[in-house]
Formats: sequence, structure tokens, C-alpha cells
Amino acid sequence: MNALDSQIAFVLEADRLKSVVRATTLADGSRYENSAEHSWHLALSALVLADQAPEDVSIDRVIKMLLLHDLVEIDAGDAPIFAEVDSAAIEAAEKKAAQRIFGILPANQGADLLALWSEFEAAKSPDAVFAKSLDRFQPPLLNLASGGGSWTEYSVTLDMIEERVAPKIKRGAPALWDWLYPRIKAFLAGHSK
Amino acid sequence: MNALDSQIAFVLEADRLKSVVRATTLADGSRYENSAEHSWHLALSALVLADQAPEDVSIDRVIKMLLLHDLVEIDAGDAPIFAEVDSAAIEAAEKKAAQRIFGILPANQGADLLALWSEFEAAKSPDAVFAKSLDRFQPPLLNLASGGGSWTEYSVTLDMIEERVAPKIKRGAPALWDWLYPRIKAFLAGHSK
Repeated sequence: MNALDSQIAFVLEADRLKSVVRATTLADGSRYENSAEHSWHLALSALVLADQAPEDVSIDRVIKMLLLHDLVEIDAGDAPIFAEVDSAAIEAAEKKAAQRIFGILPANQGADLLALWSEFEAAKSPDAVFAKSLDRFQPPLLNLASGGGSWTEYSVTLDMIEERVAPKIKRGAPALWDWLYPRIKAFLAGHSK
Repeated sequence: MNALDSQIAFVLEADRLKSVVRATTLADGSRYENSAEHSWHLALSALVLADQAPEDVSIDRVIKMLLLHDLVEIDAGDAPIFAEVDSAAIEAAEKKAAQRIFGILPANQGADLLALWSEFEAAKSPDAVFAKSLDRFQPPLLNLASGGGSWTEYSVTLDMIEERVAPKIKRGAPALWDWLYPRIKAFLAGHSK
């Protein structure tokens, strides 16, 4: 295949992310969200919430990371944050998926995008830290809007949210956690048995 | 509302684009595509097909345009390219929608994004011309993959595609039209009655 054939094959393969269903519903609760529209929502959030990022963050790189951060789920599926999962097995499956999927592209381009995905996963660079904070911020935002969503499904408590969701938001975009926290607390207090 | 409240209100409003259904199906034909995942697919395509753009194109700006190009459909709906529609009425509805939706944001930011959307719609700047070419390229790519899609639904002929789809692709990314054309021709020849 020439370069263009490979690139178009990649674009077609990426289409499958629209069929990967997440644990979060849309804000109106009408159905579960898929990972493609979730990726769009995060990239748009990065554009709109750019002023929450430290000065050393490149929003253009953050947007690119978010566009491709979930492509590995085509093979590995989505692992809901409150589910009991085998993290090591998921990490191995995602790495294998990244090799296969970015491997569809011409070699240089595939290596560049694989490196960008790996940087996001490592969550150490300023760009990746900010991107990860948006990935953690959006599901609670949707759960608040839909009236519970995955929190209800997984019987989630404030402690669980503080343990699994809060750290990455606090680290990358502390003002977003300050915005969420009182709202989540009030919501869960109103829905506790 | 302070700036952050307005920005988060915008992110939540944008969620509604996931419920706007298009005339094109996914590549596997399993269901119709929505405008949010379509926007993600285009932004990802811009990243991957960047080498099709002339040198004066900023891919970062193209990606931003594509992320927000369809938000107006939250109010105005999607107008299928082969449907008989009142173009002037749609244009007016989209302009009104853009005012309302970008108007949710802090004034300066809303004005910036409204300008970016208007630039895309005008399809004159190099960035907008390339963005438009991807918006025209993706539906035929999906139709070829799914075995007809919206072409079957609207009884589309090669002439109709050459009239309504080809010009913007040829203008912004001629190699993508050269890739599509023989495939569309062969497909339609195989499916004519």
C-alpha cells in the first residue's frame, strides 16, 4: 500500500471506535456514550477550557492526544473507572492494540502517533497531565447532568470518587475539581439511602 | 455566571450534538452516524491526512474548526447533502444557532469561536478550504465501506456526486478525490439497475 492508502485504511479502522460503548450516559441520560463522541467532547473541552492549563501546556498537542487517546479500545474495550478490573491485563491489551492500530499508518507517522498515545498514557508531561484531567472531569460532569449515570450503576460513594477520580483532576486542572466537588457532594448526599 | 461556569455550560450544551443523527451510517452499516462522532472522525482525519494540505494550511486551526463546525446542528439539525432543502432557511437557522450556542461562552471567547465557525462556513481561507474537503470526503468513504449508505437512500448517481460532493474535495484535497473517484464509479456501476 502507498502512504495514502495506509492513511485511509487507518481512518476507516478508527470508525470502529464509534461502536465502543462507555459506562457513562449522555447528559440527558438517553443512552450510553461511545468512545468516539467522548473523544470529540474532550477535544472540544480542551479548546474551551484551555485557560485552565498551565502556561507550558500546548493545547494543540493536548487536542491531538485526546483525539487518539481511546483508539486502543477498538481492540481492548473500555474499562469503566469504578469496575473491578485487571489493570495489568488491560495495560498489556492496550499496548498490543496501539501497536496494531498505529501500525496501520506509514511507519514514521505511526511511530509519531504511538509516541503521542504513550505520552498520554504515562501521564507525566504537562500536556498529558492536562489531557488526563479533562478525561477524568467529563464523566462526573455528565453524571451530574444525567442524575447519577455510572455512579448509580456502580453504587459509587464520595470516597470512591475522591480516590479514583479526584487525583488526576486536581493535578492537571485544580479549578475543575473545585467546581465539581461541592456539586458531587450535594448530589450524593441527596441520593444516599 | 463567572467565566468557568459559562465554559462548563457550553461543554454541557455541546453534549447535545451526540443526539443529532446524520444520513450516513457507520462503516459497518450498523446504525446512522451522529454529528459529534462525525466531528471527531473529521478532526482525526485532519491529523492523519495533514500531508494532503497545502503548506499555508495550519492543521491545528483546521482541527479546531472541525471540532466545532457542526455545533449549530443542535438547533438547526443536519441537512443531508442529497436531500432537497431550503438552503437560505438552513443558513439563517445555522447563523441564529451559532449566535446562541457560542453566546453561552464568555464574550471574547465566544466571539473567537464564532469567527472560526464563520470562516469554515465561508470556505474561502486555506484552512477552511481544507477542512471542507475533509467534511466532503468522509461520507463517501463511509458509504463505500458500508455498501451504499446514503447513496442508496437518496438514489444517488455519479452525476449527483460529481455536482454536489466532488468540487469541495477537488479544491481542498485533490488527491483524495483521485482516490475516491474510480472507487465510487466502480461501486455505482456494480449497483445500477
